[in-house]
Amino acid sequence: MREVPHFKLTLAYDGTALVGWQRQAEGTAIQQLLEDVLAILEGAPVTVHGAGRTDAGVHALGQVASVTLARAIDAQTLTRAMNAHLPETVRVLDAVEMPPAFHARFDAVAKTYRYRIWNTPVSSPFERYYAWHVPDPQLDVPAMALAARALEGRHDFASFQASGSPTTMTVREIFSSAITRDGALITYEVSGEGFLRHMVRSIVGTLVEVGRGRKPPEWMREVIASRSRIEAGRTVPPHGLVLVKVDYPAPGR
Amino acid sequence: MREVPHFKLTLAYDGTALVGWQRQAEGTAIQQLLEDVLAILEGAPVTVHGAGRTDAGVHALGQVASVTLARAIDAQTLTRAMNAHLPETVRVLDAVEMPPAFHARFDAVAKTYRYRIWNTPVSSPFERYYAWHVPDPQLDVPAMALAARALEGRHDFASFQASGSPTTMTVREIFSSAITRDGALITYEVSGEGFLRHMVRSIVGTLVEVGRGRKPPEWMREVIASRSRIEAGRTVPPHGLVLVKVDYPAPGR
Repeated sequence: MREVPHFKLTLAYDGTALVGWQRQAEGTAIQQLLEDVLAILEGAPVTVHGAGRTDAGVHALGQVASVTLARAIDAQTLTRAMNAHLPETVRVLDAVEMPPAFHARFDAVAKTYRYRIWNTPVSSPFERYYAWHVPDPQLDVPAMALAARALEGRHDFASFQASGSPTTMTVREIFSSAITRDGALITYEVSGEGFLRHMVRSIVGTLVEVGRGRKPPEWMREVIASRSRIEAGRTVPPHGLVLVKVDYPAPGR
Repeated sequence: MREVPHFKLTLAYDGTALVGWQRQAEGTAIQQLLEDVLAILEGAPVTVHGAGRTDAGVHALGQVASVTLARAIDAQTLTRAMNAHLPETVRVLDAVEMPPAFHARFDAVAKTYRYRIWNTPVSSPFERYYAWHVPDPQLDVPAMALAARALEGRHDFASFQASGSPTTMTVREIFSSAITRDGALITYEVSGEGFLRHMVRSIVGTLVEVGRGRKPPEWMREVIASRSRIEAGRTVPPHGLVLVKVDYPAPGR
């Protein structure tokens, strides 16, 4: 164990009642919950860096954060102590001690998001906080899958960036982009080196335009080429979105 | 459409904040929610008969109820009107008009229940109301599967009846009884002609004794043969239980 331990934390959270990753003027943020618990354990303020800033209502199965502590503590004790103090909606799944240079955000090489749509006339009592309910019509998933595939590769994704975002570097590589149906549940899963603000949710809004038959699958290429937010579909609700995992280079790479 | 329509309703509900199927002195029951909504639509009191009386905290993916209405209404309109008035935690999945003799409870020929266990040290933010958390040890699922299979067939299940239950007819036929693991999630699924009060939950308590290695799989036969509640494992928490479906004879049989 190092004198000053540095950790990679893997986190799951139900974002329903939270204002998202980042501290806000009102409401409870995930970052804040983690920093408050660590401050109790440390007896001093602690800063936690997250791999991605999930919005209010967005969930995580495998968010990653990095943190440097002043006191020596082993990973297992840290996990147990944090989970004992955190609300049940936020869990530390794993803690691993890392070299001091590790940074959850800057070292991430890939992120995977999933967006879930409940596509049947009657909503589900069990999916009301975890899937966007699209009552009808039955969406054309094969057409959506064709459109989804057009996102793969390196593209300028300016069309899918939240309006008002300051980022001018809007080129990203998408490794995989696929959509499948299992009964009433439609699942879109996308992996890429990084995502712009609201990017996954406005991609899904664009896919749903295709799924409703309002636009052909080839329209996705036009939307990308336009580099204009108003060409794409609307930003769909946050509660269908989950940050599935964040990948880092294999140790020693 | 008949003058006096009689319906079979298929229902899903999240039992977390409900006191169970049957009306209680305090809290909200599913039967009560349905009867209150139907009374508004009918302008008169209505009685709903459920296939099974699920306890507080128990969920349903396919509970069945029967109801006779005084006013003519078609199945689709009834479904929409009920869902418009019910809380989001309770949904009418389907309504079918039936012959007047149909009774959800007396005509049922099989019920299927599922019990979910989250078996890993860290709990899940997404399963906290839908699976019983057994942090450790890792349960021996193959041994539990052997014990589960011993329940299949026609047996006297007095050992698994809630203490104080008045029922003396405790013989039931179990059609299938199986348990599987998928990562941290262990799922027990049992189908039978009927179940005694708390029967599935005390079966799971008994299976977990085997899974913890405290008893061998063969112990299940001894517990059944004893016909004594104190020989079986404890009644596990309700929130892991879900009524999956209720079967009826095929029409015309």
